[in-house]
Amino acid sequence: MLGGPLRGDVAVLAPSARVAMVGAGQLARMTHQAAIDYGIDLHVLAGSPHDPAVTAGAAFTMGPADDADLLRQLAGDADVMTFDHELVPLEVLRAMASDGHVIRPSADALALGCDKFFARTAVSGIGALSTPVPAFTLVSGLSDIDSFAERHGWPVVLKARHGGYDGRGVVVVEDIGAAAGVLARGGGSQWVVEEYLDLAIEFAILLARSPSGFTVTYPPIGTVQVGGICRELILPVDLPEEMERHATAWARSIIEGFGATGIAAVEYFVTQDGRLLLNEFALRPHNSGHITMEACVTSQFHQHLRAVLDWPLGDTGLVRPAATVNLIADATTSEFSTRLPRALAIPDVHVHLYQKSVRPGRKVGHVTALADSADEALERARAAAERFLG
Amino acid sequence: MLGGPLRGDVAVLAPSARVAMVGAGQLARMTHQAAIDYGIDLHVLAGSPHDPAVTAGAAFTMGPADDADLLRQLAGDADVMTFDHELVPLEVLRAMASDGHVIRPSADALALGCDKFFARTAVSGIGALSTPVPAFTLVSGLSDIDSFAERHGWPVVLKARHGGYDGRGVVVVEDIGAAAGVLARGGGSQWVVEEYLDLAIEFAILLARSPSGFTVTYPPIGTVQVGGICRELILPVDLPEEMERHATAWARSIIEGFGATGIAAVEYFVTQDGRLLLNEFALRPHNSGHITMEACVTSQFHQHLRAVLDWPLGDTGLVRPAATVNLIADATTSEFSTRLPRALAIPDVHVHLYQKSVRPGRKVGHVTALADSADEALERARAAAERFLG
Repeated sequence: MLGGPLRGDVAVLAPSARVAMVGAGQLARMTHQAAIDYGIDLHVLAGSPHDPAVTAGAAFTMGPADDADLLRQLAGDADVMTFDHELVPLEVLRAMASDGHVIRPSADALALGCDKFFARTAVSGIGALSTPVPAFTLVSGLSDIDSFAERHGWPVVLKARHGGYDGRGVVVVEDIGAAAGVLARGGGSQWVVEEYLDLAIEFAILLARSPSGFTVTYPPIGTVQVGGICRELILPVDLPEEMERHATAWARSIIEGFGATGIAAVEYFVTQDGRLLLNEFALRPHNSGHITMEACVTSQFHQHLRAVLDWPLGDTGLVRPAATVNLIADATTSEFSTRLPRALAIPDVHVHLYQKSVRPGRKVGHVTALADSADEALERARAAAERFLG
Repeated sequence: MLGGPLRGDVAVLAPSARVAMVGAGQLARMTHQAAIDYGIDLHVLAGSPHDPAVTAGAAFTMGPADDADLLRQLAGDADVMTFDHELVPLEVLRAMASDGHVIRPSADALALGCDKFFARTAVSGIGALSTPVPAFTLVSGLSDIDSFAERHGWPVVLKARHGGYDGRGVVVVEDIGAAAGVLARGGGSQWVVEEYLDLAIEFAILLARSPSGFTVTYPPIGTVQVGGICRELILPVDLPEEMERHATAWARSIIEGFGATGIAAVEYFVTQDGRLLLNEFALRPHNSGHITMEACVTSQFHQHLRAVLDWPLGDTGLVRPAATVNLIADATTSEFSTRLPRALAIPDVHVHLYQKSVRPGRKVGHVTALADSADEALERARAAAERFLG
């Protein structure tokens, strides 16, 4: 790419790259911040002028993420197209790729993050390693849930096959009556039924792969979910060494096996009786990776851009122990942003507000604290997060 | 500030604050990145749509920074007005302040950074401490330079009283003929003549003060100037403890004495024979502070926003030893941005490109490296910076 037009003796420097991102949520917002460092022009596909990446100043086009013409136009103007969410029509992406558009990750890799049933079944044959998944089956009708519960016991977990996130599309049901209610309210969603696990901890392996085949992995990030929403992150998380090694190697083998590019997150369950089980995949920057913005040498947002542009990947090492607490909107959320100064009075906390439209239960920001230990950091991040409450 | 308009059950969250910034250069660009973290709407006054803060997506108004109506309009729409540069008419700011506009720092404090003669003379009576300034005098004509050189010897340094930066407006002259040439080419600039110093090192004390009267100071940052342009930064810099203590306390007393708010930088000379002398002031985020983005807990850009909004100030502690190398445009600069991936191949470097229009000799970005020692960081930052050269 050469310099732009000349004004007198002044060359206007061309951007280092042009990246299109489908979606304009907080992931796109923080990707835009990283893009500024690298002199990258980021262009997002937004659903609303109030979307977090738009209020952060990213260039944007308004439109639905399933509009094939729009997607082609965006990709055509960019060096690479990538994603802030998975709610995209994979068949359109496949057709675009065969017409020469550069789309990273590919539709085949994205499928791992779009379709819980596919993710569960597709990974079994990959690589020399294997990681068990929770017992599960696809639900065609209520009787499938009943017979599944006969084998595995109540409660069971119902998960929407497509499009669930942040607690939506994940329901623990205690009996067949409750299950019937979920199916009735589901509006035609397809469901997967899964055994209920007695969890000790959850964690995520964040990794990045570039088209040239380089892969880097981050240290495991502890995640605390409440009601299906990720509430807290901790880094480092205390795991048996063998479990960490296995989880990291297996995540790498899946990402390499699917030829994924960009940032990916593999989420794991650890049960009270010490079993390691796969939870799910995200083929994009991920909530668990927010902690990397301050805690690791290279943030997941810088790393994602580097990976999809096939630039050298960055160091994933830990700078300092850290913890992140997500800010969840409540009924008083319209005053959230005015409470920021109160939170900043706590030392060594880093606040990220998404400036998004708010609904009770939605993540509207996060706070990361660094300290000499992750426990101390968690205490501090929690104290700061509490100051946002009414 | 309450929530914005409702869309169904969705409240669009108001920004945490509205900040107007005069100027849209790289300082405004990096302030915009920090503003995104805090959910602050930053609105910049730009001279060109190619300005670095504009290409980063900050909301902007185009116009000259000396247009009083425009300044009033910008300030009227914001909680506070602040600055990316000092090329603003102080009398306009004074009138605006007396009409109730919130302007930080005030015109009286800004004057320290605008007027080299004023800065040299005004600081002598402040506080219990004092720091010598180099011998200097205001130049009315060539004879002033001649008699100054008789007392202090050749060479002497000529500095434009107003508006000099990045080596422009600073000239070392060897004899009266050269001095006459500078005055003839100066286009009516007023000049200060100053003794030429044999320098050992230069450093800056970065500090921030809020309207409530809280002040924080950063550890001293070593600066390496070549031809009047800051080329390299190093943190920590090796200074005698007593000198560090004095320089920090004196900087604080000046900033408090002038009631300055926001980030300020006080630049010092240390001569080969061990004398500490004042160089100059900046009453805004400063080039020397770029290193704080990765090396300190709170970056100067976050800190500046916190200070001018009278929010709690952030921790200024060192995260890890660091060095910064500025990227200076050369004849091949139109290809600068394409060389970014080469630089990213060096571990633990953080690149910031300003996406600005380029002219040989202009700063177009910077590279910061972190390491176990500042020397090692400097080696790494230099290696990365070299990869931008043709």
